[in-house]
Amino acid sequence: MFNKIMMHQTEYLGYAAGIITTLAFLPQAVRIFRTRRTRDISLLWALSMNIGIILWLLYGIVKNDMPIIAANSITLCLLIIILYYKVRYR
Amino acid sequence: MFNKIMMHQTEYLGYAAGIITTLAFLPQAVRIFRTRRTRDISLLWALSMNIGIILWLLYGIVKNDMPIIAANSITLCLLIIILYYKVRYR
Repeated sequence: MFNKIMMHQTEYLGYAAGIITTLAFLPQAVRIFRTRRTRDISLLWALSMNIGIILWLLYGIVKNDMPIIAANSITLCLLIIILYYKVRYR
Repeated sequence: MFNKIMMHQTEYLGYAAGIITTLAFLPQAVRIFRTRRTRDISLLWALSMNIGIILWLLYGIVKNDMPIIAANSITLCLLIIILYYKVRYR
């Protein structure tokens, strides 16, 4: 019973972390979309984030860790948009 | 034996993901440090990433997940630098 509550709390913590770090990329994507400016964004950052988040997604799938899977799926979508704009409007 | 190999491979995948998404923030921090320009960086992104990564770190500690702990500790350091420059040179 206690373990089950602990597990739930840990899951909630993971979901909270995932929701915040995922939604964080939304204002960044919106800013780039509106300004069409990406000069201060590092191309190497955008590129390696895309690769890294794909690996985190695979890690979540292998460990069957839902907070990691959910967070990284959405983050990946937003990072693809950011990378696209970075490459288009350098 | 097979399970142990599988576990190791999963750990390696997690470490690879962690190393890439952690090192990704290095060229971004270096770029900001050199140019002193942060206009295209979203303040809301920098702020919520700092909060979110602190939560991921706690999640890693509670689940005793070393790749998550290691990756998020270093990412947090780089994000604190990025947030500092964003607030100083908006």
